[in-house]
Amino acid sequence: MSKVLIIGAGGVGSVVVHKCAQVPEVFSEICLASRTLSRCENIQKSVKERTGRDIEIARVDADNVAETVALIKRVQPKLVLNLALPYQDLHIMDACLETGVDYLDTANYEPPDEAKFCYKWQWDYQSRFKEKGLMALLGSGFDPGVTNVYCAHAAKHHFDEIHYVDILDANAGDHGHPFATNFNPEINIREVTAKGKYWENGTWVETAPLSIKQSYDFPVLGPKNAYLMYHEELESLAKNIKGLKRIRFWMTFSDNYLKHLEVLQNVGMTGIEPVMFEGREIIPLQFLKALLPDPASLGPRTKGKTCIGCEVEGLKDGKPKKMFIYNVCDHEECYREVGSQAISYTTGVPAMIGAMMMLTGKWRGAGVFNMEELDPDPFMEKLNIHGLPWVEKVLA
Amino acid sequence: MSKVLIIGAGGVGSVVVHKCAQVPEVFSEICLASRTLSRCENIQKSVKERTGRDIEIARVDADNVAETVALIKRVQPKLVLNLALPYQDLHIMDACLETGVDYLDTANYEPPDEAKFCYKWQWDYQSRFKEKGLMALLGSGFDPGVTNVYCAHAAKHHFDEIHYVDILDANAGDHGHPFATNFNPEINIREVTAKGKYWENGTWVETAPLSIKQSYDFPVLGPKNAYLMYHEELESLAKNIKGLKRIRFWMTFSDNYLKHLEVLQNVGMTGIEPVMFEGREIIPLQFLKALLPDPASLGPRTKGKTCIGCEVEGLKDGKPKKMFIYNVCDHEECYREVGSQAISYTTGVPAMIGAMMMLTGKWRGAGVFNMEELDPDPFMEKLNIHGLPWVEKVLA
Repeated sequence: MSKVLIIGAGGVGSVVVHKCAQVPEVFSEICLASRTLSRCENIQKSVKERTGRDIEIARVDADNVAETVALIKRVQPKLVLNLALPYQDLHIMDACLETGVDYLDTANYEPPDEAKFCYKWQWDYQSRFKEKGLMALLGSGFDPGVTNVYCAHAAKHHFDEIHYVDILDANAGDHGHPFATNFNPEINIREVTAKGKYWENGTWVETAPLSIKQSYDFPVLGPKNAYLMYHEELESLAKNIKGLKRIRFWMTFSDNYLKHLEVLQNVGMTGIEPVMFEGREIIPLQFLKALLPDPASLGPRTKGKTCIGCEVEGLKDGKPKKMFIYNVCDHEECYREVGSQAISYTTGVPAMIGAMMMLTGKWRGAGVFNMEELDPDPFMEKLNIHGLPWVEKVLA
Repeated sequence: MSKVLIIGAGGVGSVVVHKCAQVPEVFSEICLASRTLSRCENIQKSVKERTGRDIEIARVDADNVAETVALIKRVQPKLVLNLALPYQDLHIMDACLETGVDYLDTANYEPPDEAKFCYKWQWDYQSRFKEKGLMALLGSGFDPGVTNVYCAHAAKHHFDEIHYVDILDANAGDHGHPFATNFNPEINIREVTAKGKYWENGTWVETAPLSIKQSYDFPVLGPKNAYLMYHEELESLAKNIKGLKRIRFWMTFSDNYLKHLEVLQNVGMTGIEPVMFEGREIIPLQFLKALLPDPASLGPRTKGKTCIGCEVEGLKDGKPKKMFIYNVCDHEECYREVGSQAISYTTGVPAMIGAMMMLTGKWRGAGVFNMEELDPDPFMEKLNIHGLPWVEKVLA
């Protein structure tokens, strides 16, 4: 019986609140806080209608540590779930340290002024969380998150040695707009336009943005073009999977999506450097964001499915083995259940399960943890129960 | 021996000033005026270097009739050449009427707040110019302009009846940018994204933007995709060519250009309705213009040629006849001669020749005139001398 404070009332925050509300035996009280109170009110209303439960709401500017500290002191949660912007991770971790409360997030810290993300900033909090006997669980979404747990599961149950991992993320959803991003366009476009990077034989190999692709035959979805990208779980998995030779991440994009992205880059609309316009500085990417459909508006109109999984290759009992562990999620089913499509759903459910692991004592420890460092079994069990069932297929 | 006042110091204005300066026996004195004096200074300097001639310069806001009137009174020209924005045509015509000076332009009036252009507004000045004994020559560029003269030439020398006219405008220039417009992006994109329209059997037929295309085998350039568009000379030619059955206008666009345009439209970047952004109204198309390369910067880097012509079909001596009258112009040669590429050159040279026709008395009359209403012979002769030689090819 524990109270949680959830910060962030975007698409993922909304899923997390709905899913926590479905498990009152673990999440006895829920407080949702955001910069924009009206977003919290909408979620509060939806949760009441769908589950009959009342949740508390509050306004907070998560960039302001003192304000977050005051909120935590007032709410008295056992755990803070951070579903705000990646720019705010460190501020919320600081507030947790100051108030002595455990921490969980779904995406690693990214400085607001450069398109660069890595775990260093958050791993540097290791000793401070350890000293205080607090636990910080990093990246408890789908990718990172479930993909890390899939790797831990493969290592525990299926392989003696893992040599190659390919993480594959496909979204075959159709929202009917010529172009829109599934989450915050600013974060999305910064991610997609960044250089690709993968890890091989102990070193990182950098590639031009979207320059390497393969056609991958996804279960249920069929063949899709998947592009090599850097993704944050590569950093921790390359460190934590012993004996690994190579790990890569692939995401599918339609030709139409890439065409739009190419043109917007060509004309400078994806730039994050200010441009002078009518005597004032304007950041092109932020103006583009203002023109594009609000990702929250895509939920009711998105059809189709996602498939995200890990293709793992290595040795078992001295013989080569290859398998694919994955989940398939349906946009319309997610929307019916919690009022959000699969992109938010697949990130929000694992955040709820990660919180459940911490609050029920299945996952405990002092310090900063990535998902693959903890026992995958209880987490994998809950995935099947709470809406993200997994399948494992032996390929060779 | 006459003095002219040239208003507008963009790409076309610059060509007109250079070309007029090459013919001192007609253009004995030249004054160039613009909202931005520094642009005039640059052209003044270039004209001095290239021709040794001194021209006068002045600052004027052509939207302000009183200011333009004061300038005309001070400069005392025989003719005002309007090479400013199409939004300003009526203001400058008003100033000419008030001061009793002849008028010439290259593009018809377009209201600033809607993507629509037609001659009605300017034809409505007919009686006022007539009463004052003044002449206004409309559309003395290439298209409109030379294309109208080609039609008059065909009617005078090659056909007893003209039934079909197709005007074809190809630009096979390459500026090396992924996307840029050859003249003011705002005007260019408004024109290209407008509905297509052609005239057949006495009525106008409207088509979805860029929905009708043909591959046309241009002389020198070879086959290019040409798209049916509305273009202003169709309006006057449909009225002035007796017995005409159909007239259409086609412009070539590369697949790459169209891809960029489609995406920019899809995301709303070509919109002319203001969008609220950070508490202020921003017109997306104007912000896009600020991001794109300045058309003036394309001159030194554009290679390749343009080809613009009229395919005319009808009867001569009772037999069917078909011919193509055209000009081919080279971007780099234009740049060497006057410091501008072929798009500005092909518009600016006919403006100079039109002015020459008026000042030398070859073309005279009181009222508002389109080019095809006047004798084509002296104009066609000057095209060959002043940089836009024409070719006529009998096709059938």
